[in-house]
Amino acid sequence: MRLAYLVPAPISLSMGTDEVERRRAVLRGLAGPGTTLDLVEAAEGPASIESALEEYLSVPGAAREVERLEAEGYDGAVLGCAGDPGLDALREVAERLVIVGPGEASFLMASTLGRRFAVLTPAESTVGPTYDQVHRSGLRDRLAGVRSVEIPVLAMRDDRRATLARVEQAARRALDEDGADVLVLGCMSLAFLRADVELAEATGVPVVNPLLAAVKFLEALVSAGLHHSKRAFPRPPKLAHGAGVASLLLRTGA
Amino acid sequence: MRLAYLVPAPISLSMGTDEVERRRAVLRGLAGPGTTLDLVEAAEGPASIESALEEYLSVPGAAREVERLEAEGYDGAVLGCAGDPGLDALREVAERLVIVGPGEASFLMASTLGRRFAVLTPAESTVGPTYDQVHRSGLRDRLAGVRSVEIPVLAMRDDRRATLARVEQAARRALDEDGADVLVLGCMSLAFLRADVELAEATGVPVVNPLLAAVKFLEALVSAGLHHSKRAFPRPPKLAHGAGVASLLLRTGA
Amino acid sequence: MRLAYLVPAPISLSMGTDEVERRRAVLRGLAGPGTTLDLVEAAEGPASIESALEEYLSVPGAAREVERLEAEGYDGAVLGCAGDPGLDALREVAERLVIVGPGEASFLMASTLGRRFAVLTPAESTVGPTYDQVHRSGLRDRLAGVRSVEIPVLAMRDDRRATLARVEQAARRALDEDGADVLVLGCMSLAFLRADVELAEATGVPVVNPLLAAVKFLEALVSAGLHHSKRAFPRPPKLAHGAGVASLLLRTGA
Amino acid sequence: MRLAYLVPAPISLSMGTDEVERRRAVLRGLAGPGTTLDLVEAAEGPASIESALEEYLSVPGAAREVERLEAEGYDGAVLGCAGDPGLDALREVAERLVIVGPGEASFLMASTLGRRFAVLTPAESTVGPTYDQVHRSGLRDRLAGVRSVEIPVLAMRDDRRATLARVEQAARRALDEDGADVLVLGCMSLAFLRADVELAEATGVPVVNPLLAAVKFLEALVSAGLHHSKRAFPRPPKLAHGAGVASLLLRTGA
Amino acid sequence: MRLAYLVPAPISLSMGTDEVERRRAVLRGLAGPGTTLDLVEAAEGPASIESALEEYLSVPGAAREVERLEAEGYDGAVLGCAGDPGLDALREVAERLVIVGPGEASFLMASTLGRRFAVLTPAESTVGPTYDQVHRSGLRDRLAGVRSVEIPVLAMRDDRRATLARVEQAARRALDEDGADVLVLGCMSLAFLRADVELAEATGVPVVNPLLAAVKFLEALVSAGLHHSKRAFPRPPKLAHGAGVASLLLRTGA
Amino acid sequence: MRLAYLVPAPISLSMGTDEVERRRAVLRGLAGPGTTLDLVEAAEGPASIESALEEYLSVPGAAREVERLEAEGYDGAVLGCAGDPGLDALREVAERLVIVGPGEASFLMASTLGRRFAVLTPAESTVGPTYDQVHRSGLRDRLAGVRSVEIPVLAMRDDRRATLARVEQAARRALDEDGADVLVLGCMSLAFLRADVELAEATGVPVVNPLLAAVKFLEALVSAGLHHSKRAFPRPPKLAHGAGVASLLLRTGA
Repeated sequence: MRLAYLVPAPISLSMGTDEVERRRAVLRGLAGPGTTLDLVEAAEGPASIESALEEYLSVPGAAREVERLEAEGYDGAVLGCAGDPGLDALREVAERLVIVGPGEASFLMASTLGRRFAVLTPAESTVGPTYDQVHRSGLRDRLAGVRSVEIPVLAMRDDRRATLARVEQAARRALDEDGADVLVLGCMSLAFLRADVELAEATGVPVVNPLLAAVKFLEALVSAGLHHSKRAFPRPPKLAHGAGVASLLLRTGA
Repeated sequence: MRLAYLVPAPISLSMGTDEVERRRAVLRGLAGPGTTLDLVEAAEGPASIESALEEYLSVPGAAREVERLEAEGYDGAVLGCAGDPGLDALREVAERLVIVGPGEASFLMASTLGRRFAVLTPAESTVGPTYDQVHRSGLRDRLAGVRSVEIPVLAMRDDRRATLARVEQAARRALDEDGADVLVLGCMSLAFLRADVELAEATGVPVVNPLLAAVKFLEALVSAGLHHSKRAFPRPPKLAHGAGVASLLLRTGA
Repeated sequence: MRLAYLVPAPISLSMGTDEVERRRAVLRGLAGPGTTLDLVEAAEGPASIESALEEYLSVPGAAREVERLEAEGYDGAVLGCAGDPGLDALREVAERLVIVGPGEASFLMASTLGRRFAVLTPAESTVGPTYDQVHRSGLRDRLAGVRSVEIPVLAMRDDRRATLARVEQAARRALDEDGADVLVLGCMSLAFLRADVELAEATGVPVVNPLLAAVKFLEALVSAGLHHSKRAFPRPPKLAHGAGVASLLLRTGA
Repeated sequence: MRLAYLVPAPISLSMGTDEVERRRAVLRGLAGPGTTLDLVEAAEGPASIESALEEYLSVPGAAREVERLEAEGYDGAVLGCAGDPGLDALREVAERLVIVGPGEASFLMASTLGRRFAVLTPAESTVGPTYDQVHRSGLRDRLAGVRSVEIPVLAMRDDRRATLARVEQAARRALDEDGADVLVLGCMSLAFLRADVELAEATGVPVVNPLLAAVKFLEALVSAGLHHSKRAFPRPPKLAHGAGVASLLLRTGA
Repeated sequence: MRLAYLVPAPISLSMGTDEVERRRAVLRGLAGPGTTLDLVEAAEGPASIESALEEYLSVPGAAREVERLEAEGYDGAVLGCAGDPGLDALREVAERLVIVGPGEASFLMASTLGRRFAVLTPAESTVGPTYDQVHRSGLRDRLAGVRSVEIPVLAMRDDRRATLARVEQAARRALDEDGADVLVLGCMSLAFLRADVELAEATGVPVVNPLLAAVKFLEALVSAGLHHSKRAFPRPPKLAHGAGVASLLLRTGA
Repeated sequence: MRLAYLVPAPISLSMGTDEVERRRAVLRGLAGPGTTLDLVEAAEGPASIESALEEYLSVPGAAREVERLEAEGYDGAVLGCAGDPGLDALREVAERLVIVGPGEASFLMASTLGRRFAVLTPAESTVGPTYDQVHRSGLRDRLAGVRSVEIPVLAMRDDRRATLARVEQAARRALDEDGADVLVLGCMSLAFLRADVELAEATGVPVVNPLLAAVKFLEALVSAGLHHSKRAFPRPPKLAHGAGVASLLLRTGA
């Protein structure tokens, strides 16, 4: 099975190719037997996603990339952002390609591992949008709460140890004050740091890593032969006769 | 008070300047005493919005326009699409500008005019997203149902009479089968056609026109001196030091 | 447009005509251009409303006043109590008159200004009924919490400064402990004190004043040409042939 | 135990004393061993309750009657209207008297007899308020639907047979189209006609008679030694020092 | 009326016949005039119920006992466990026998005594299942919270005073932190200790004892002539022709 | 990875060893590379599961089998019944073994393939329990409806073609009347018949087969290194010191 990890921005420009290579290696380690999992970058997108605005800005580039992945025969793609920006739109574009959001996949897995899960997000400003995201997934009755780690996404890699300490602090509040019994990492940078390993050990509860959750959930859907419902996510009418996503945008003066 | 009706695409290119002028005239007729209401077009956006994908594609251009409106001292803006695309992102960009979505404003007004309202959407493919939109507004317990009119948006103006007949047909099902007691037009083209007038007469129930609802709701918010909560819609961190929306996008090869 | 602020009790008897005149002046300052806004008092009602019982006791007098306002050609009325007592009954009585409740109008406006709003009520005993009221409005998913100011309504005017201090204290708990991002004053006495101005400044979040919210929301509905659905609020059958509200009551002996 | 069936209006004036005597006899037949169950009429109230307005108009008279019943040492009272008007206010007035609403008691019993119950109401105009009433009871997830019998309350006694036929017709739709497995009579006139007996036989599902449900539920609460929570239904502050309900009303010109 | 208190295990073996006799005496004191209330023990079941597993293990024995009670002409049975294990299955087995669960009966009564009730459970491990149980009852909107008493069920009788102190402690948190206005004892051992009496006195709010609630609610259903809906709880097809519950189990090697 | 398909009854006795061998072969075809998937039968359980009662009766045998699987070093088990009977209890017993219910796994997968899914159940009597099951999964907002196929489970294999015709009929109603956009087979016999293949072709929407869904979801959880939360599903206290499930049952005389 041929899968892609689709980063909705040219992060080689912002994070550097070293970090992108490191992430490629992590991804290679995750793919199951018989699966290839390529990191691909959209040609256009925000440097990082820390607001609703940047979520929207990431969609046009990702949609064009979905078009390309489908043309090249990929079976599925993981959207490379824990906020799952534009998942419905990307599924409209795809005809056969199965697209999984790390947030949604994590919530679905977390819901069956316990009774009530909590999500740990990078910043106070992403707490509200994360509540909205869980509501969209249909699982709000299973949400214990959302807690902020309060570390800038870019600073996370600099001091892994300090990051883990902050994550554990937020986790303790989720467990003790919100009554959570499962934890979800709500950020792909924490996911690539594999913060789940130490956190599960420290807290004794399962910790869902959105990267693993999404890759494994995608493998499950593809190997079960399932595709998104085109009744739910119909192809945009203007794309009917071979027109591409890029053709949908009008521009003045340009 | 100085308000804008912000169309999230250069529709002069797609609909022609005659239709845009006609709409300008309609808008001038709606503004209350002491209010100016200008139609403004984003420099970039989809020809029309008939899918989730096109909703997302409309946001980058609209966000830049919000930036400009605020710089020019506008008090408020109505987003010119019944699906309210990117409302949260636009509110993040704005510091003082109040931004109203026609869908949300209509649902809020409809909720107080009766017990359960129905929304009439252009096509079967917009039924699902409209349910999602009502859920986002928090008012799903007040929703009787969503019914599709089944007319392409572009064909609506061609035969006003046929359009009204289809709208009334959908309305009857909403009233008789779904138990609605208030109707909402879920499409700006129906709004500019003023389909609400005949429909209210034919059915005997209130019909909310999203254009009127949004303009009047916006006037209400602005004259009450209210602004969006920056705690709920914080300014994206990367825009902190005078950077503009356009600076957020990275592009390869550029 | 001709509007009334309908106090559901003869408060000139309880509060004195000076305070009533002061409130008339406040109201005159709120009306938009082309709007008259008269304070009218029902001939019968409770001295003040601090319990569910007093809410019910206010309805018979208010219903008769609605009858009179409609006969005199008023376009709309704001019900003068933040608890919105008997809103459904008053809408049954009215044929064309649009009636807005300050509580409901505030919740609707608050819901669009942020993600989750909190209501500040006068006393612990009104906390429960306020939860019920938000549920009736359909917006319980957007409610962060209800916090009590713990000042007797009658004492509020005596020491404006002390009142504001208590209001701010309750507001801080709503923001810090309940996660609210918008505040609503749940009391008309706080509204006439204009406690919203200082509170918005102190907290940095929008504060909805139910008096402004109701008047502006009513102006919006009337200028949009909307009326309540008689399918939702049908005229009571016994009032069909010209009978008035007063004729509905049987009395033994008396 | 000493119980009252409190009719919130002087129905001897509207229905005649013969019908009232007939109802007294029915009530005597319902009381369990050791229980007295008296029919009492409020001194003021609407001839019958067919609208939200009349529900409110019934509360002031009922509240004064609750005061009297408590003074006379009654243990509990059934409110004599299936819409449960003013239940919260009456519970505020009572110190020890337990007050049961026939609607609420029926919904609670119905919820344990099956999975989803339907309510049969007299008229189309009471369908909406009945949905609201079930929501207030907290049991909306257990409601299959509300169906209207479409017979004026006053005409029900005239032709018992025709009435039962209409009731059965509505019941069939509730069972076949709404998926109900338990039925509730939503009207005290149907209750006093004992329409439940034939309906249960005809349909094969349990039919809750609100009169029986309320009397038996009240006996259960009283014999379990339970009272309403004064934390939930606090005594109105103005009634603190021996003042009665009647003292709460101000009147101009009086 | 002939009622049984059905203990879903042979507790004479685990608790001793003295304690069973003491419980028989308590039950005799609860039955209303004209009611007999026998304690019966299933021939098979867990020593006590402190986990979901033990709830399931209690059902086969209880189902066979229901069969016997119905054959002997009983009118109703209270299931002797506050978790209501297998209530739906037992109602499938019964043709006429009315079966009440102490948990469900308590929640239904509590819901009408206030606005929001809290449940006090024996251990932290029963908190989650109790949330689930309230959700199943349909009343989750009326639940303030679940608080654990943290005493092993078997130790409760040893030191009644210490037990009451722990119960009161948990109750205070439910009232002060969760905003409850009614309390429910979530454990039959607390019920047989009559912990409700002192707790109601100490806290000033109603305390629902599941034993009293269930017995009185069952008396109410039976004397109202109501039975469970066989449409909701159909007889298992394999039991159609006189086959008994015991015949449903296949065993290898047997 | 070593997985089991745990049938909660000795179905070799009821279905015959031929059918069991056929199912073993189907299972072998489903396991991914590196996975073994054994069919194991509990030593005790009902011949088939067509009622809530039989669901409960299946749990004791399944719990003992879980104990054995864990002792033998299995990594995970699929519970072999679409109703997921006793899933919480089995997870209490397991220390490391991951247990997936086919119903829950199907609902979780279906929720991400579209907006609203429908479940097709064997009989009218399983419609109600299936609604309950979806509610327990937390996904009721995503459920379009439950439709019954109306074929006895045992008759399904006899005429595959007739069965498929009935399944398609039920599916059409779910799509046309309930607005579903994804279908779920709610029965393991339909799953082993692979009714999903033709149904997906005939209807054009994705059809989730609970057997594939469960196996693939289990592989995903195990390969992601996740386990159930012991905070949510604590080990029953009486099993703490090496005691086994069988020790929990007391029996009189016999």
